[in-house]
Amino acid sequence: MMKKDYQKLSVQAHRKVRGKISVIGKLPINNHHDLSIAYTPGVAGPALAISKNKSLAYDMTATKNGVAIVSDGSAVLGLGNIGPEGALPIMEGKAVLFKRFANIDGFPIVLSTQKVEEIIAAVKAIAPTFGGINLEDISAPRCFEIEEQLKKELNIPVMHDDQHGTAIVVLAGIINALKVVRKRKESVQVVINGAGAAGIAITKLLHYYGVENIVICDSQGVINKKRKNLVSVKKEILKITNKQNVSGSLSDALKNADIFIGVSKGNVLKPSDIKAMAEKAIIFAMANPIPEIMPADAKRAGAAIVASGRSDFPNQINNVLVYPGIFKGAIESRTSKITEKMKVAAAEALADVVSKPTAGKIIPDIFDKKVVLAVSNAVKKLAKSS
Amino acid sequence: MMKKDYQKLSVQAHRKVRGKISVIGKLPINNHHDLSIAYTPGVAGPALAISKNKSLAYDMTATKNGVAIVSDGSAVLGLGNIGPEGALPIMEGKAVLFKRFANIDGFPIVLSTQKVEEIIAAVKAIAPTFGGINLEDISAPRCFEIEEQLKKELNIPVMHDDQHGTAIVVLAGIINALKVVRKRKESVQVVINGAGAAGIAITKLLHYYGVENIVICDSQGVINKKRKNLVSVKKEILKITNKQNVSGSLSDALKNADIFIGVSKGNVLKPSDIKAMAEKAIIFAMANPIPEIMPADAKRAGAAIVASGRSDFPNQINNVLVYPGIFKGAIESRTSKITEKMKVAAAEALADVVSKPTAGKIIPDIFDKKVVLAVSNAVKKLAKSS
Repeated sequence: MMKKDYQKLSVQAHRKVRGKISVIGKLPINNHHDLSIAYTPGVAGPALAISKNKSLAYDMTATKNGVAIVSDGSAVLGLGNIGPEGALPIMEGKAVLFKRFANIDGFPIVLSTQKVEEIIAAVKAIAPTFGGINLEDISAPRCFEIEEQLKKELNIPVMHDDQHGTAIVVLAGIINALKVVRKRKESVQVVINGAGAAGIAITKLLHYYGVENIVICDSQGVINKKRKNLVSVKKEILKITNKQNVSGSLSDALKNADIFIGVSKGNVLKPSDIKAMAEKAIIFAMANPIPEIMPADAKRAGAAIVASGRSDFPNQINNVLVYPGIFKGAIESRTSKITEKMKVAAAEALADVVSKPTAGKIIPDIFDKKVVLAVSNAVKKLAKSS
Repeated sequence: MMKKDYQKLSVQAHRKVRGKISVIGKLPINNHHDLSIAYTPGVAGPALAISKNKSLAYDMTATKNGVAIVSDGSAVLGLGNIGPEGALPIMEGKAVLFKRFANIDGFPIVLSTQKVEEIIAAVKAIAPTFGGINLEDISAPRCFEIEEQLKKELNIPVMHDDQHGTAIVVLAGIINALKVVRKRKESVQVVINGAGAAGIAITKLLHYYGVENIVICDSQGVINKKRKNLVSVKKEILKITNKQNVSGSLSDALKNADIFIGVSKGNVLKPSDIKAMAEKAIIFAMANPIPEIMPADAKRAGAAIVASGRSDFPNQINNVLVYPGIFKGAIESRTSKITEKMKVAAAEALADVVSKPTAGKIIPDIFDKKVVLAVSNAVKKLAKSS
């Protein structure tokens, strides 16, 4: 089915249910006795208990076991800066998926401001309500500063899913792809196209995992030390990428590379680019809705493994594989931080769900029930050992 | 049952359900087709439509038809400043009641700050998410400034329930009480004990309704022009109260008064105070959990009508009779303001639900299904005519 048709069906479905989430009560309210327990005067009991010991909020409230899904609407899907109201259906969609896959209550919050300081202040202000903060669809480079500051100042887990959800699922796919082509993380040459939220986070996580040779490209080509006027995040990423300080275009960078990871524009790879790569090339063409190269074309040009962001091709690289389990693990273990170690452990656990990876299956399907438990248990294990 | 027992039962119930609300999805997620409609790529359809026409958020999202229930935890029930986490069970309780009585989705938000400017900024920041803002359990006099500023700056309805929910239900009770004792609003003498959020709002709404003679007392006695160091809200209220500039104690003020409305401390009325009132005295003893005077004692001292805040006596004056219907009416009519006229109309409609008021029944029961519709229709009628 075409993307346009899905949009039309989606509009119809959203209109029909008038919003696809609902906040329901779990205690009966059939008489004054019920009211006295769910509300006054009885509710003074839980209120007083929690005020004396805040951690009891996890035992007696829903929001403290739930996640705020927060966006300023500045980088929504591939649609760009469509504002807070436009972002609401995506935030409500994430709430639906949090519930469906991890039984977590998701609370959409969209913001009237796109100023870094005001976003930080607003999230800090509402933070006591929740067990975790899922930042969503906030544009780079503001997303980096916002997340970093909130992680520093809050004692609940904060994760920008467009960065780390993406990075974790990519790492999981790369782990299995390397098994299939029998290459080692220490020796592969990786080219990443896109230096936004996803590109930067993928680069950092692959580096942390032990991938030593990474070159990252933006719309101007390879990011290297000779480039002038680089924004600070791109300067920073040079500390862990492009050791040989190569320059040139994306095509130049791809010569003899082992892995291509695309998280920017579609249609940027030609078959000749893939032919110029090393043998058994791995292609993650994740631009949406149009991949960097269509999977069939990449295969025909000699790629050993092709993944994309689309559900209509094999090897769909989809954040939904990650964020429900990450927050489930973080909240259930009451950890205050989602660490780099947890992200790697989550990726390894997700990769392990595929017992025998093949070129056609390097990543599990989201409807595989083992996925959420594997990811959340990996997080919980590390939370408890720290 | 004793208050203590209800607290114990409530703690047990809250622990058992681990938070008494839940955010559920209303669209099925059983396969990739479902995912493509509730989430990507289809969700781009509603997102784009809303970004072009914000009012479509009412047709396609849940939060825009929902209410944020916002507190800083500074004046929670009768418990005082117990902080944001302690306030959560009350906010979740209101969400349960919003759903139960008006089928409205309520989203609890508690804040890490008690500074007026920061609270205003936080609520403004999250406002695009919601259809209305129910401020809750914020202490006076900060609550007045916070509500006033937010009403000015936001284009969705904002209501501090402790002020106006209480004022509306009190006015409804007074309307029927006056019918029973056959007195006129223009000629009765009213004494209000308590100059906090509820006392000030009740005073203003009774005055707007046409009650001409009101005296308001605080812990220092009658508020009058001779009093020094009055906070600005108490100075302001003198413009519409205490025309004869009387002074003295609460007992002094009650001599020959027709109506007593207590919204402060319990146990402040003696039988002799009631005996000193005019004939057919009306007593609203709403301090919680201990009323200003026990209803039986008030009756024995000669009161014609007694109401309280408790469910174990007749004539319970309970906000739950008001806020679900007020927000239902405001959101369904997409009005941006809850006006004084709407509040009076809501009170009159609520009073009218009792077809034949008697001393023992001046206010309907919350489980009377006519209540929410009466209140919401009153609001909607005025919203459409404005």
